[in-house]
Amino acid sequence: MGSDGGAAELVRGAVQALDESDITVTLVGDETEIREALGSHQPDSRIRIVHAAQIVTMDDSPMDAIRKKKDSSMIRAFDLFKGGEVDAVVSAGNSGAVMASAVKFMGRLQGIQRPAIAGVFPTLKNPVIMADVGANVDCRATHLYQFAIMASAFSKIMFDIKNPRVGLLSIGAEGGKGNALVKKTHGLLEKSRLNFIGNVEGCDTFKGDVDVIVCDGFVGNVCLKLTEGLAESVLTMLREEISKTFKAKVGYFLARHAFGTFKKRVDYAEYGGAPLLGLNGTAIICHGRSSSTAIKNALFVADELSAHRVNDHILDMLSAVDHSEEMD
Amino acid sequence: MGSDGGAAELVRGAVQALDESDITVTLVGDETEIREALGSHQPDSRIRIVHAAQIVTMDDSPMDAIRKKKDSSMIRAFDLFKGGEVDAVVSAGNSGAVMASAVKFMGRLQGIQRPAIAGVFPTLKNPVIMADVGANVDCRATHLYQFAIMASAFSKIMFDIKNPRVGLLSIGAEGGKGNALVKKTHGLLEKSRLNFIGNVEGCDTFKGDVDVIVCDGFVGNVCLKLTEGLAESVLTMLREEISKTFKAKVGYFLARHAFGTFKKRVDYAEYGGAPLLGLNGTAIICHGRSSSTAIKNALFVADELSAHRVNDHILDMLSAVDHSEEMD
Repeated sequence: MGSDGGAAELVRGAVQALDESDITVTLVGDETEIREALGSHQPDSRIRIVHAAQIVTMDDSPMDAIRKKKDSSMIRAFDLFKGGEVDAVVSAGNSGAVMASAVKFMGRLQGIQRPAIAGVFPTLKNPVIMADVGANVDCRATHLYQFAIMASAFSKIMFDIKNPRVGLLSIGAEGGKGNALVKKTHGLLEKSRLNFIGNVEGCDTFKGDVDVIVCDGFVGNVCLKLTEGLAESVLTMLREEISKTFKAKVGYFLARHAFGTFKKRVDYAEYGGAPLLGLNGTAIICHGRSSSTAIKNALFVADELSAHRVNDHILDMLSAVDHSEEMD
Repeated sequence: MGSDGGAAELVRGAVQALDESDITVTLVGDETEIREALGSHQPDSRIRIVHAAQIVTMDDSPMDAIRKKKDSSMIRAFDLFKGGEVDAVVSAGNSGAVMASAVKFMGRLQGIQRPAIAGVFPTLKNPVIMADVGANVDCRATHLYQFAIMASAFSKIMFDIKNPRVGLLSIGAEGGKGNALVKKTHGLLEKSRLNFIGNVEGCDTFKGDVDVIVCDGFVGNVCLKLTEGLAESVLTMLREEISKTFKAKVGYFLARHAFGTFKKRVDYAEYGGAPLLGLNGTAIICHGRSSSTAIKNALFVADELSAHRVNDHILDMLSAVDHSEEMD
């Protein structure tokens, strides 16, 4: 209920997901609004409504959401998870509140110090996963190290990559380059069993030669939003130039299908939301202004992660790593 | 001499600058190579050659450049500055070595703790200046505060902006959002006499509603390279889509002028190099693979900063700030 556009767009996304897969969906929120948005698709064996009277707004603090809004769509959804009624939670609401609720209701995976948000970026080849993109603004090297493990597990399951190439986001290719945090993390990743390919730079993000990029949540969030902003601005500037002459306008008309395919290719909506990794459960954080396509894809990501037990993979990788460290 | 493409492209840029302005240029490096590149433009009252036998390579450490390569084009150029023979130094060589040499030969401005590199980004409106984009990877709040002062002075002179709007790069608009460094810097900027408009996010960078963006050099360098990489990838992806059908190719042909103008608009070369601010002198760091246009524009930036005494402006702003603090 707390997304920028209210319930309707999310309900549309859920209906699309039902049409294209065999998942079941529980819609949590204002029942009247949801029924209205559902239109001819009324509740049946695959679609359920759970009423919640309150809404966590974008201005609520995470603590207020948990303490004072127990009957909100967000908290009710996590309650359903805790009661074993759903396998995963997808939300386009206040992301700080989603994170806090997810940690409280699902709990951290054994051994994980800090859950992280994994963002998916389009590239010239396969998409690349960046972690963390906003859950942890001040990090230690062990946190980044665990982000690498969690994002690798996500990459394996989501994109079928056997041995994901892990890069450490820095400002130079050599191991000695970077800030204090990055230099320390480099040492940890080098000793790990992960497929660590060394430092990568901002310009490597979109080339597609790395599957997982590790950084702290401050840097990752700046990257995420910079990418979003730049892609939008580039298209606006291009449109401005094209609208200046009749010939260019005709040209754009003829090439418009290519533009459409291109836009789809760089559209974050294609990759659904960003999973919060490192929990005893599956939670997907979506953009507040998610389209129905983004919600549909986020539901598919949630299904994929939960069905293929991403958390078991993370635990396995954590213990394998611990074991190798003991032997060192 | 140490740029990716050698001396020829830089010499071409210098000749273009001479044609379009009344500056004088001293070319420092291998005399034979420079004479060859100059072709019909041989030395005269506005163009001088100073021979240097050594080259600082991209792999040299800054300390090695200074200690072991005293007869390199880079060190000789800074020597000329120290001897009062030139007003500014422009280099497309090893940027770490340029920074170290600039600090050693020009010295820091009185009161400046850390010189910073100012990057210029294209936006939907006026260009925005980001500082620091790579000189300082681990920063304290007072450093970021001084970056704001230096970049404001640069913005005033370079883009004729009376009272530059200063934004602090963070991951949320509210003052409480960000990592520990950003939160502390927010407090300092709020109390300053600068035109501080609060936090800005990655997505605000290209909108043109802020003139100066402040961040530490790690984050800024990641942003700089991410922007470069994304702009290139976006154009590659678009070209791929367009090449898929005949109709789209015809369309692109008709709209190609718009694409050209667009490319020029987002091309970093249009803004020349990035000045290293906070020195008793003017030093411009250019991309290793700078085009002649980028070099020409970097020479103009150097001329502008030196002629309009950016450093006096910085000193004035620093002392105004100190004064206001004393009165608090």
